[in-house]
Amino acid sequence: MITDTIVALATPSGVGAIGIIRLSGENSIELCNKAFNSTNRKKDLCEQKSHTLHFGTINDGDRIIDEVLVSIFKGTNSYTGENSVEVSCHGSQYILQEVINLFIRLGARMAQPGEFTLRAFTNGKLDLSQAEAVADLIHSESEAAHKTAMQQMRGGFSKEIEQLRDELIHFASMIELELDFAEEDVEFADRGALELLVERIKKVIKRLVDSFAVGNVIKNGIPVAIVGEPNVGKSTLLNVLLNEERAIVSEIAGTTRDTIEDELNIGGQIFRFIDTAGIRETTDTIESLGIKKTFEKIDQASIVIYLFDSSKPHKREIEEIEKISKRVGDKKLIILANKIDLADIKVIEKEFESHENLFCISAKFNEGVEKLTDRLLSYTSTGQVSDNQNIVTNSRHYEALLLAYSELTKVEEGLAINLSGDFLAIDIRQALYHLGEITGQVTSDDLLGNILSNFCIGK
Amino acid sequence: MITDTIVALATPSGVGAIGIIRLSGENSIELCNKAFNSTNRKKDLCEQKSHTLHFGTINDGDRIIDEVLVSIFKGTNSYTGENSVEVSCHGSQYILQEVINLFIRLGARMAQPGEFTLRAFTNGKLDLSQAEAVADLIHSESEAAHKTAMQQMRGGFSKEIEQLRDELIHFASMIELELDFAEEDVEFADRGALELLVERIKKVIKRLVDSFAVGNVIKNGIPVAIVGEPNVGKSTLLNVLLNEERAIVSEIAGTTRDTIEDELNIGGQIFRFIDTAGIRETTDTIESLGIKKTFEKIDQASIVIYLFDSSKPHKREIEEIEKISKRVGDKKLIILANKIDLADIKVIEKEFESHENLFCISAKFNEGVEKLTDRLLSYTSTGQVSDNQNIVTNSRHYEALLLAYSELTKVEEGLAINLSGDFLAIDIRQALYHLGEITGQVTSDDLLGNILSNFCIGK
Repeated sequence: MITDTIVALATPSGVGAIGIIRLSGENSIELCNKAFNSTNRKKDLCEQKSHTLHFGTINDGDRIIDEVLVSIFKGTNSYTGENSVEVSCHGSQYILQEVINLFIRLGARMAQPGEFTLRAFTNGKLDLSQAEAVADLIHSESEAAHKTAMQQMRGGFSKEIEQLRDELIHFASMIELELDFAEEDVEFADRGALELLVERIKKVIKRLVDSFAVGNVIKNGIPVAIVGEPNVGKSTLLNVLLNEERAIVSEIAGTTRDTIEDELNIGGQIFRFIDTAGIRETTDTIESLGIKKTFEKIDQASIVIYLFDSSKPHKREIEEIEKISKRVGDKKLIILANKIDLADIKVIEKEFESHENLFCISAKFNEGVEKLTDRLLSYTSTGQVSDNQNIVTNSRHYEALLLAYSELTKVEEGLAINLSGDFLAIDIRQALYHLGEITGQVTSDDLLGNILSNFCIGK
Repeated sequence: MITDTIVALATPSGVGAIGIIRLSGENSIELCNKAFNSTNRKKDLCEQKSHTLHFGTINDGDRIIDEVLVSIFKGTNSYTGENSVEVSCHGSQYILQEVINLFIRLGARMAQPGEFTLRAFTNGKLDLSQAEAVADLIHSESEAAHKTAMQQMRGGFSKEIEQLRDELIHFASMIELELDFAEEDVEFADRGALELLVERIKKVIKRLVDSFAVGNVIKNGIPVAIVGEPNVGKSTLLNVLLNEERAIVSEIAGTTRDTIEDELNIGGQIFRFIDTAGIRETTDTIESLGIKKTFEKIDQASIVIYLFDSSKPHKREIEEIEKISKRVGDKKLIILANKIDLADIKVIEKEFESHENLFCISAKFNEGVEKLTDRLLSYTSTGQVSDNQNIVTNSRHYEALLLAYSELTKVEEGLAINLSGDFLAIDIRQALYHLGEITGQVTSDDLLGNILSNFCIGK
């Protein structure tokens, strides 16, 4: 068991009214007590009840570092499932650093990213998918992302999976027991019941696997590529959509060489806009690298916006739209005639009458942009996630589910051809392994390290 | 009395493990209770003891917004001196906004900047100078700034001033009483004792006024102007000193048009470096505005660094150093020969041998810069603020002290010429007024508004 005391800042860095320093470990209360003085007399924090707050000062010898409020959590009733302390300081970077330094001198150790949550996992307060949901919850930026993360943190599908896994373990044990009595040709595991169970589990997994398409969009947003010639106003459009000056807008054609991504929350749905360099023919090496990237981004996007300058001759654009249209396949292509304030809207509409998805806009004057966002929204339907629907948003879970599904299919096939118990057992154990990976019953240091590296220090 | 419930985020915005939402007001616990559900059953927060922590969820109807820890503070034992609640949420911007919105729908009002501290002041938990120290404490960036702010927050000189003020009030009342018996020519106020008291108060004020020179440097840092021709490497030097890419470094002469300020903590002392446009003659209007600014900044600085490019002919620089030297007066002028990697160090040292403060450096290769910082440090001695020394760091206090001092001098003069009681009383009242302004016994909405506008929302 881990017993050392870890310390970290739990609130975002920056100036604020309050900053919280978190300590966790068997001796964390004792350690904090060494630096703590209550206002009037020495109060022993170790003697205080769990879930109580204590006003006082944190002292380094004679020097008062801060007036603080200390929260005491004892034993399994804390986030980490072990003794822990939260020290609420004034939100000064200087003070917070001094207090952390003091605790380290008194014997605490700086926590690794996600180490508080790791302890919660180790102490059985959370399973792995719940721990992952904590990170998702903190990073959730839309109602749908928040709802799915909250559901997962509060148990979500992991309980369902755990229960099915337990039933499957039962069969695996039975079959393995048969092997001990191989000479006697007994059958402890009812093959018919096993078949039904496998079918049931596959059904659940299938539903969860299918939910990932929606879950991924909820978590990562819908990718929208904005393509077009240089200097037609892609960056300006992005800025209008994002309502901030993120992309570099310049009059020099070909400024946007790197792809810039940004997220916009429209009606509770995250769109991930990818601004790409145009696709004109060029001899500039860097620029042509950008064009290659553009095509890559088009392939990855769910929606493609083709933008052109309607105030200029655009014969070539019409050809290019054909090209893009072929490339995009059945993906949603939206054609945007920009700078319409400098063009004749009727002429443009006539020229592009064969395209149903034409919008005439002026990004500069923010005209027609609302119609575009409405259309974008009409393509999505992820806002309506029902309250009790379990959705897989984590690609790690998705992959583990796919692997478990394929192993279970092997079990089914084995049952169909009356495969011997020893081979069946191998496939079942594999399925169990992948299901166990999701909730963390099966785990490795690599896997844990990987997951926790997504956490901030202090969580 | 104010009784409505105010709400605000108390931790810095940004993603972190924890975000704290603070509620204060008579009904704040009741209000929070409407949204709170404990894990197993409905727990009534209103029935809980002060200084206790409660795990549960914040719910908007059926929807769970977050799993939280709620801290309950009852009555005068809270920061604000009234019922208050701190809700510790997951540190997601989305969640924190949703919870705040929910509390507002339930009847809370968004707090103004510093409104929690205003309530602490109104409820007698802090005097005004202590409230101001809270803001200073949060913004303290060095040991000295932290020490003086902490001292002030924990009472500091305000107790001393309050006590002297009380004694003075006694005399003022006595003298005013004499006025009621004007016909009878009695003397309730002992003129000799008054004279001694005034002398005593003036001594205290004098000490505090004198401490402001140190206090101001502690709080605001030592202003150091970096001047020199365009393109000699001012911004590069600043970047080396700041160890970050803050100023825009460019090869185009005259890039740094606006003055850029930045702070650097060297050995516990804050230096405020002011990078200014050069002082070359120019016909460019914007540029010449910059030069005017340069001279203003030189006048405000305690230390002036003149920087030039030693790899180029620098006859004109020598003339300009003379000009600057005159302008600077007895202020500390440091001459920096930059780009020494491209010049002959011996030649330079010979040319400037009449200047004791010459340093040959290469900002680009970070050579010789350490000697410069050592010299800068040698100019300061504010690190050694003794533990029990009260230092005035606030210019508002400084001004009030000066005004009180001048009124007390008038009282002294009045006593010397046996001024009649009614005139003496006026001067004493004025002195009392200015002393009262410091701790807030005398206050106005304007003054409060001004002070609290320096606070962040949530404090």
